[in-house]
Amino acid sequence: MKHELENTMALLERTPAALDALLRGLPEAWTESNEGGNTWNVSTVIAHLIHCEDEDWMPRARHILHAGESEPFAPLDREGHVRFGRGKTLAQLLDEFARARTKSLDELRALKLTQQDLGRRGRHPALGSVTLSELLATWAAHDLTHLHQISRIMAHQVREAVGPWARFLGVMQCAGHSEAA
Amino acid sequence: MKHELENTMALLERTPAALDALLRGLPEAWTESNEGGNTWNVSTVIAHLIHCEDEDWMPRARHILHAGESEPFAPLDREGHVRFGRGKTLAQLLDEFARARTKSLDELRALKLTQQDLGRRGRHPALGSVTLSELLATWAAHDLTHLHQISRIMAHQVREAVGPWARFLGVMQCAGHSEAA
Repeated sequence: MKHELENTMALLERTPAALDALLRGLPEAWTESNEGGNTWNVSTVIAHLIHCEDEDWMPRARHILHAGESEPFAPLDREGHVRFGRGKTLAQLLDEFARARTKSLDELRALKLTQQDLGRRGRHPALGSVTLSELLATWAAHDLTHLHQISRIMAHQVREAVGPWARFLGVMQCAGHSEAA
Repeated sequence: MKHELENTMALLERTPAALDALLRGLPEAWTESNEGGNTWNVSTVIAHLIHCEDEDWMPRARHILHAGESEPFAPLDREGHVRFGRGKTLAQLLDEFARARTKSLDELRALKLTQQDLGRRGRHPALGSVTLSELLATWAAHDLTHLHQISRIMAHQVREAVGPWARFLGVMQCAGHSEAA
């Protein structure tokens, strides 16, 4: 489980730089268009990642260590990304996400979690009893789910432009399937 | 259409650095495990991207400009990634992909494509008549389909570790749906 924590942190450390390399300076045709209706664009996703750094992962980790299962996590504000994204450019959002992630990981390292800590339990408002270890693995998987979403949002922008190739491109068959974590 | 070409190139330029930032130095638990059976791991995907730089995108673009629809593209070798990946570390594959992509884009720029060029047609062995513009948009979308796949392969490695959160994580509902481009 300690080994898994190291793997989790290795991924969490890399996500901001990966998103930065992919997205900074990219034409807005890729980043400011969505998948139709009131779906998210790429900038919205980055605002959501900042929101989760601020109000989800480390706050819930501390909640498990301090309160255990005695009271559930506060539910996440489903519109929280609006507060974190308002009036910001994608470049500003990428900067802010990188800063927030560095701060979170500094805090995580400072906890010097033991095997026993990783097995401690909290209570998710919808999922019930969960462990700190599961929360931390979910943090990494949540980065991946949004990288998956970003690639799908961007691919959507060239759905017509690829002509008949659309049926060979897996990302264009993906229907999108995330709920809130 | 010229504008679309600029958008396509902006993405193609960024993919190697994004994959590098995400993957270099990551523990092998993320990159050398697959989704079961004979599915691909992350390193295999990078070998496939190198294969496509070498034998798909620019060779087919030149084929359209030189031969038009008179003869179809050579079909891609479905096992080509094996030739390009054999005996190489992920770090070596990332380096090679970056070099191959730079070379491809230098060649693409040197073609100084006009609007008329972008409308020229070739013949895909399975899809029939396609335009150069569609081929180039597909090149970008193909990067995205493999970024989508990589995020899904990596998320698969923590499917058990996230416990009950799996059902909230869209990437874990994604069944994978690519064919060859």
